[in-house]
Amino acid sequence: MIDLDDVLAARERVADVARHTPLDYSNTFSTMTGAEVHLKLECFQRTGSFKIRGAANRIRTLSAAERDAGVVTASAGNHAQGVALAASRSGVDAKVVMPEAAPISKVRATESYGAEVVLHGVDYDEAQAHAHDLEEREGRTYVHAFDDEYVMAGQGTLGLEVVDDLPELDTVVVPIGGGGLISGVATAAKAHDPDVRVVGVQAEGASTVAQSLQKGDPERVDAVDTIADGIAVRRVGETTFPVIRERVDEVVTVSDDEIATALVLLLERGKTLVEGAGATPLAALLGEAFDYAPDEAVVPVLSGGNIDLNLLTTVVMRGLVDQGRYVKLRTVLKDRPGALNDLIDVVADARANIYAVQHDRTNRDIAMNAAEVELDLETRGPEHVDALLSRIREEGFDVTVLNGPRPPGKG
Amino acid sequence: MIDLDDVLAARERVADVARHTPLDYSNTFSTMTGAEVHLKLECFQRTGSFKIRGAANRIRTLSAAERDAGVVTASAGNHAQGVALAASRSGVDAKVVMPEAAPISKVRATESYGAEVVLHGVDYDEAQAHAHDLEEREGRTYVHAFDDEYVMAGQGTLGLEVVDDLPELDTVVVPIGGGGLISGVATAAKAHDPDVRVVGVQAEGASTVAQSLQKGDPERVDAVDTIADGIAVRRVGETTFPVIRERVDEVVTVSDDEIATALVLLLERGKTLVEGAGATPLAALLGEAFDYAPDEAVVPVLSGGNIDLNLLTTVVMRGLVDQGRYVKLRTVLKDRPGALNDLIDVVADARANIYAVQHDRTNRDIAMNAAEVELDLETRGPEHVDALLSRIREEGFDVTVLNGPRPPGKG
Repeated sequence: MIDLDDVLAARERVADVARHTPLDYSNTFSTMTGAEVHLKLECFQRTGSFKIRGAANRIRTLSAAERDAGVVTASAGNHAQGVALAASRSGVDAKVVMPEAAPISKVRATESYGAEVVLHGVDYDEAQAHAHDLEEREGRTYVHAFDDEYVMAGQGTLGLEVVDDLPELDTVVVPIGGGGLISGVATAAKAHDPDVRVVGVQAEGASTVAQSLQKGDPERVDAVDTIADGIAVRRVGETTFPVIRERVDEVVTVSDDEIATALVLLLERGKTLVEGAGATPLAALLGEAFDYAPDEAVVPVLSGGNIDLNLLTTVVMRGLVDQGRYVKLRTVLKDRPGALNDLIDVVADARANIYAVQHDRTNRDIAMNAAEVELDLETRGPEHVDALLSRIREEGFDVTVLNGPRPPGKG
Repeated sequence: MIDLDDVLAARERVADVARHTPLDYSNTFSTMTGAEVHLKLECFQRTGSFKIRGAANRIRTLSAAERDAGVVTASAGNHAQGVALAASRSGVDAKVVMPEAAPISKVRATESYGAEVVLHGVDYDEAQAHAHDLEEREGRTYVHAFDDEYVMAGQGTLGLEVVDDLPELDTVVVPIGGGGLISGVATAAKAHDPDVRVVGVQAEGASTVAQSLQKGDPERVDAVDTIADGIAVRRVGETTFPVIRERVDEVVTVSDDEIATALVLLLERGKTLVEGAGATPLAALLGEAFDYAPDEAVVPVLSGGNIDLNLLTTVVMRGLVDQGRYVKLRTVLKDRPGALNDLIDVVADARANIYAVQHDRTNRDIAMNAAEVELDLETRGPEHVDALLSRIREEGFDVTVLNGPRPPGKG
């Protein structure tokens, strides 16, 4: 099992490749939670995520012969970019295999960091098989995304930065996909002070660790489904799991709605872009997925910022809906002059701003003399949405909420 | 005319309200431009923009009697929030008048910083008239957004931070709306070193200063139209204009497309959210709106980050379109089995990813046996779009670009 010395050695090796990222006290989130919140802004790391740390430590521990033969990995995510930059900074040739349908932005980013991208296979499993093929055929070293002690120790350098910058921390909150980051961070944090609490966060749609902890062995789930694609991993690592079991105090889950809300708040209040996985620690804090005391010094690790911009626009919309700041309604109007005006008057009177109106008379499910209307509205929050709906119904309109805020109490 | 001493005095007054924001070397933008680019990250300022600096300096120079009577202003933008927080931190009562249709997010933010928001009038002019009314009736001091020497000197504290953090800078690039920020920054920069170049940037749709410089007096334009709402000002200030004329070396303009592209790059590569106005200095640098030498030390001032999230999603889309990374096409298919498949095969073969397909047979302008198809596609850049269009046309489809990249050479 890795220990503090492994992480300290990694720090020397990765110092000129990975940045020491800022740890910023957040007035906004401290006020919102009552805790003393310090954000570890790893989204500002080179390549946009912590993966560069582990990849660099792995590559810099290769033998001279291994360096000459180069490395290979399979990833269409942050690990791809981490390996690409770590390898090129060390003068090592790297091939990264991605499925053929990989987003163009990921291909370009990985190439821009100096790796050769090989597009192969219809899914990740086929890409990975091809990467292992290249490992064998070309004598390359396969750099695993998490299940490797050098990779884990490399990710642990983030933990050293946290304890150096805030020695009196109480709790560090870390996303878990395969477990590479949290096993390294927990090793550093517990060595600093065994009383530091380490909380792991998984997405509800990919919560492999809670099950694995119950069974005592890494469990595989058949399917994962979450907007936090960086931690959408079907099985925690063989090597990371024992470290998690020994050094992580709690593992909690958050929903996609909670992730979207945290992401939107970071963007809107903090002017900082994180990806879904990077938002999970703050989502867990805001959703009280774990207990904390007033003024407890809590460090959510915002592990990365690489989110596809098209996905971002979807997530932003979802976060606004979740907070009751955007609502989509459907109603049916008798198709007489002025009916739409009456509806819009009610909405304006309730001080909701209209973004879009769709007016349709062709729907076969409604009477010939009626028209269906969909309204996209800016609202002030869940209470405002409730008040607005009451007003519309009082005026005699039958209204359906197509997309509205989360009901209170639902995770 | 304000001088260095005014700015130095302002620094003392605002030190406990405004943050010293980071000045970050940008590897990405240095590589892209060949200059040595240091970003002044004022988007991380309290209230999300530099406006807090000027407002705090104004409020802290009030007499005891003026403080007791409180302040008033008219603004639905960053100035509203700056005045709100500066006043509440100084224990001064503040009223902020906004037009009745002001975005809810702006109202809430301003209230959250401790001001009373008064909704009045259908537009900014009516809101402003009401604010002057309150000034008279309640004896409040009107805090102008830019045309006030204390406000200008307060904004100049940003310039002191830049020259302290990077004494060897060559060029500082600053957005101009009313001219408060640039007049303060130019005063600080020229006092530090008369050879520092100060470049002002306006949006093409609100470029009042170039005209005013020609005429020698502040000119008013009748209408402004830009996504950079923070600098959509119809007239540069009376007090700021002489300072600009004396201390600003160059004033350039940028288009909305260039602004959108800079904003998207900052978000995607820098994980940093800026508003339209805050993106203009980087847009000017990337678009070579001014000349610069290789390795010239250039500081784009990212003046704020308060962008409405709905506008953000629109701007992101526009930036992707401008870069040739998102394209919307329309074509007409003979409505026979397989026609849509053929089209999609061509697209897939050209390695464009499909986001959305709209298939419509009800359009009256096309033949009864034909169907109109719109495709939303992810593409790799302008060359890829061109290649894709050629392929589609070669296959016999007549295709129209609804929304595509900027033609080369067009500003």
